[in-house]
Amino acid sequence: MKESLGNLKKAARELYLLEHTQATVSWDQETQMPDAANEERSDQLALLEGIMHQKLTSPEIGRLLSALGADDEKPEGKGNFDIEDKAFVREMYRSYSRASRLPEKLVTEIARQTGLAHSSWVEARKNADFSLFEEDLEKIIELNREKAGKIGYKDHPYDALLDEYEPWMTASKVEEVFGPLGKNLADLTARIAKKKQVETSFVEKKYPVDKQNAFGTKVVEKLGYDFGRGRLDISAHPFTTTLGTNDVRITTRYDESLVLSGLFSNIHEGGHAMYEMGVGENIQGNILAAGVSLGIHESQSRFWENMIGRSRAFWEIFYPDFQKTFSKQTEGVSLDDFYKAVNRVEPSFIRVEADEVTYSLHVILRFEIEKAMLSGDLKVSSLPDEWNRRMKSLLGIVPADDSEGVLQDVHWSAGLIGYFPTYALGNLYAAQFMNSMENQLGDVGKIVRSGDFSSILGWLRENIHQYGRVYPAEKLCRRVTGESLNPDYFMHYLENKYGEVYGLRGN
Amino acid sequence: MKESLGNLKKAARELYLLEHTQATVSWDQETQMPDAANEERSDQLALLEGIMHQKLTSPEIGRLLSALGADDEKPEGKGNFDIEDKAFVREMYRSYSRASRLPEKLVTEIARQTGLAHSSWVEARKNADFSLFEEDLEKIIELNREKAGKIGYKDHPYDALLDEYEPWMTASKVEEVFGPLGKNLADLTARIAKKKQVETSFVEKKYPVDKQNAFGTKVVEKLGYDFGRGRLDISAHPFTTTLGTNDVRITTRYDESLVLSGLFSNIHEGGHAMYEMGVGENIQGNILAAGVSLGIHESQSRFWENMIGRSRAFWEIFYPDFQKTFSKQTEGVSLDDFYKAVNRVEPSFIRVEADEVTYSLHVILRFEIEKAMLSGDLKVSSLPDEWNRRMKSLLGIVPADDSEGVLQDVHWSAGLIGYFPTYALGNLYAAQFMNSMENQLGDVGKIVRSGDFSSILGWLRENIHQYGRVYPAEKLCRRVTGESLNPDYFMHYLENKYGEVYGLRGN
Repeated sequence: MKESLGNLKKAARELYLLEHTQATVSWDQETQMPDAANEERSDQLALLEGIMHQKLTSPEIGRLLSALGADDEKPEGKGNFDIEDKAFVREMYRSYSRASRLPEKLVTEIARQTGLAHSSWVEARKNADFSLFEEDLEKIIELNREKAGKIGYKDHPYDALLDEYEPWMTASKVEEVFGPLGKNLADLTARIAKKKQVETSFVEKKYPVDKQNAFGTKVVEKLGYDFGRGRLDISAHPFTTTLGTNDVRITTRYDESLVLSGLFSNIHEGGHAMYEMGVGENIQGNILAAGVSLGIHESQSRFWENMIGRSRAFWEIFYPDFQKTFSKQTEGVSLDDFYKAVNRVEPSFIRVEADEVTYSLHVILRFEIEKAMLSGDLKVSSLPDEWNRRMKSLLGIVPADDSEGVLQDVHWSAGLIGYFPTYALGNLYAAQFMNSMENQLGDVGKIVRSGDFSSILGWLRENIHQYGRVYPAEKLCRRVTGESLNPDYFMHYLENKYGEVYGLRGN
Repeated sequence: MKESLGNLKKAARELYLLEHTQATVSWDQETQMPDAANEERSDQLALLEGIMHQKLTSPEIGRLLSALGADDEKPEGKGNFDIEDKAFVREMYRSYSRASRLPEKLVTEIARQTGLAHSSWVEARKNADFSLFEEDLEKIIELNREKAGKIGYKDHPYDALLDEYEPWMTASKVEEVFGPLGKNLADLTARIAKKKQVETSFVEKKYPVDKQNAFGTKVVEKLGYDFGRGRLDISAHPFTTTLGTNDVRITTRYDESLVLSGLFSNIHEGGHAMYEMGVGENIQGNILAAGVSLGIHESQSRFWENMIGRSRAFWEIFYPDFQKTFSKQTEGVSLDDFYKAVNRVEPSFIRVEADEVTYSLHVILRFEIEKAMLSGDLKVSSLPDEWNRRMKSLLGIVPADDSEGVLQDVHWSAGLIGYFPTYALGNLYAAQFMNSMENQLGDVGKIVRSGDFSSILGWLRENIHQYGRVYPAEKLCRRVTGESLNPDYFMHYLENKYGEVYGLRGN
């Protein structure tokens, strides 16, 4: 067994290195590469993908996993190993079995179909005409159904897809959590809508991009992002990527007229990056050295972005410098005005522009629609009507056309079904983690007001980051908070914060 | 045969893509990566190298080459193919046979030994103490002798090594050329030394780096470097690298006190890049889409750097702008003064700082020493004495210590034996090509003075660049110039130019 484990680690090390190679080549594509090189770069990436797939699904890895006794019942194998080695076998088994169950023909067909669908989606969105995308989306749903069947599931085909992004999570567990969450969020949104809206004109002024960059860079550094092990660049869409244990990069974008968008994007990506930077030395260089699930990953980015970055305490520390940097734009704007502007709540059509309160409603809508499409309960042709109906019921508004409705996100055209829930799970985990943090460290606002964030980052590293993928999300959550995922913490956090921002208390 | 050719092309396409992937990852390492990530990045590169080696030496490629009838006598195979396909088979056979003749054990040992030697060389150079490097260099020579034996050669083990950088070239051919060249260059250097030295104090002033960058960028763009298919960045040592057919990048470095060094480095790398950018559409995406040898590559960089960039015509065009950009530094400096400063000749110790006249003497010295070490005629322990003796004889000066003598270059510590000659071959090819260019286009100086360089670049593309690796260097040279490599053109060019700069005429 020891020898098989050693050999499996050697093989896994190659996958680990190739993943980072791929990340490097992709990062370059998004941030540095001349546009003219795009076609060949795609070929380079496809070849790397093929080499990785071949290595991951090689008979040798299958034999080693068998020798270690790993199977669906006992993915961690039967070896008498320590917790990290068991987790290593479990994650290798999971990757291997998912990859080897997909026939090459299906993988190629999905790649081909998503290529086509991306073009038709771009066209459909441009023309606000869902019919241009309908046929391709139908095929994508059909291919994902087939994919789920090959991978296998107990209750719902959705489980097999969700598992790719949120390992070991199931649709029924998500439902259990999203059910009450949806009701509570819709209720809170409705209560806020009755109150006087906060003023935001001053954050819609023009803020010079170079100053935004200087300020945003200072902020992420102060929070704990280590520029000695990363860098911040500009790309069309912000992202975080790990090119090596000591090379975790973030990107952002700035728009003169969207000062908050750029800043919170920096903090958000910084949160993702600090997670990856914080894996323990004992698992560095190993496939365990990464975020355990997209939901947990998102909990880190959203914790820093929303719970820290949009807190009053944060702006007590940073507003004086912000005001000095942008004196003209913030003239006569008090800290209280600014804090409220940063936390404006209002039902809107576009998910990525949504506030903290309404954001998860957008996700719940997508989750329910995906599940219904996959099971066949919802026909793709009825999708726009269904979308609008649910928008009305959850957010009380109806998009004027499909481009600000069902066509707004790229995910489905890229074949990503089961991805959306992780965004909302991130909000829930973040609030639940913060509750534990406060139980142990005391008032987080007080720490933030000290201007020294190291105890907050230290707590996250100690309790979450260092473990990488050692503990599955559910187990991690129990270890950190003493209970399973519980949406009450998030609601409690929102009620408290927005009760104050919008004066809901005593209602 | 057709089918074998098709399959070989498919396999070669993967090698082509992997080479560019490797180039991307290396470029990132040199220009973007945080230092802390260096160790893992080296592992990533070593893995890619291993994958490429495995693919190149796979039994499948051996079988395909056999099926195509390629062997040492007929590397281009026996198929009735067009010139490009024959060249493709020839280059694949060359790469395959070189790589598959080296036992893995030897490759690993060379990698290990050069790792050690690099450290001892750094130490030795720092302390100007050759003895710290001697033992490792001995082993490197021994390993290179073994490598040459495995690869095979007709006349001299040096041939097998030289062939890696300058395919199909031999030591005896280099000797034939370097023999008279050395005498003539030493003679010209001695005649110049008797003349009054030109004034250079004004180019040693401080030139702001941002202005150097703006000026240097403008110059390479004007010469024809296409920023839509590349980019210019900063690195510790300037280089050119091809990351894709439409992605050929150059790097440079600027030093406030070395304005000429930065500018000519830009032009030099731009010359390399324009070569790679100019390969014909018919061979793009194919392994033939690259420079055919380091000597030919160097002919392109040195043509632009020296024959264009250091010409009087060039400065007639660019000096007004240079003087405007650096008005303080160039106050009272005439075009003639400046042109002469750019072409100052003086025997010096360091190869990379040498002028156009003395540069090749540094190379000839290294070539003779390498050959003697490899054949065993020169003991490594006698190397410093031999170095100094030859410096005295060729350049008339003796270094004060080994760090400005035998220890100055990184090449030997990196296991590169047989590389140096390509630098001087580049000078020779460049002059010979320019002679043909002038026969066809007329006075190049006149074209330069027009400020429109497109007919010069067009001629190079038409006659050299478009062919990539289709014609071996020797064949290419005959096609372009009607004769084999002939050092007379270079001497003629130098005599003409420096005869005027130093007033040697009528001597």
